[in-house]
Amino acid sequence: MRKALLQAQHALDKGEIPVGAVLVAQDVILAQTHNQTELLKDFTAHAEMLALSAGTQALGSKYLNQATLYITLSPCVMCAGACFWSKIGTLVYAATDVKTPPAELKKILHPKTSVIEGVLAEESQKLLREFFQKKR
Amino acid sequence: MRKALLQAQHALDKGEIPVGAVLVAQDVILAQTHNQTELLKDFTAHAEMLALSAGTQALGSKYLNQATLYITLSPCVMCAGACFWSKIGTLVYAATDVKTPPAELKKILHPKTSVIEGVLAEESQKLLREFFQKKR
Repeated sequence: MRKALLQAQHALDKGEIPVGAVLVAQDVILAQTHNQTELLKDFTAHAEMLALSAGTQALGSKYLNQATLYITLSPCVMCAGACFWSKIGTLVYAATDVKTPPAELKKILHPKTSVIEGVLAEESQKLLREFFQKKR
Repeated sequence: MRKALLQAQHALDKGEIPVGAVLVAQDVILAQTHNQTELLKDFTAHAEMLALSAGTQALGSKYLNQATLYITLSPCVMCAGACFWSKIGTLVYAATDVKTPPAELKKILHPKTSVIEGVLAEESQKLLREFFQKKR
């Protein structure tokens, strides 16, 4: 999660909403990504989407059931839907997005996906607060 | 929708789940896509995701509120989430996926998105039936 937070910091430095993701399988980092919606002018370029897509390319597999995705903010509906299709093994997130509270998220994710929430949440929230304060 | 169904047929011919999408803005076709999850080994490569991403690139805009997306099957949660972010103006679909019935879909889409359902639904269902019968 420290590496995912570093990615979120990179996003913040570039004026993107600071969300970072790291995808790991069998102790190997498959992807380290951050939100790039502004840079790519693509609303699908969320950190998680980029990490999951990169992961399938790296493994040559449609499914990521052996992998763990670390994200600094709980996934939006689109990204949770992508997590469902990926059958991601474990999802670890820091801060919780009010739009996707744990109960809502659970409904979207694959039933076999384990979820660990709140890891380094305060550090993620700090970056998000900094971003939105700057925007005001 | 006829063009979207033609895209779905292309998907079927390639052994992909037959779903097609066409994105239109101001009477110009911005994208014609079909499901490519098998070819690209990428579970995010749904017809709608490819069409929406191509549309933002074509228009150089993050939002597609002036555009209409035609799809041969109601979007999954991931794609509906992408539609939300795109603020797509109008969504027209043929068959209804049992996992995303109209009431569920409405909760995910942007409140300003208009939805027209059931256009040439039978023709889309025919392609889907053909695909799943072959798989059995």
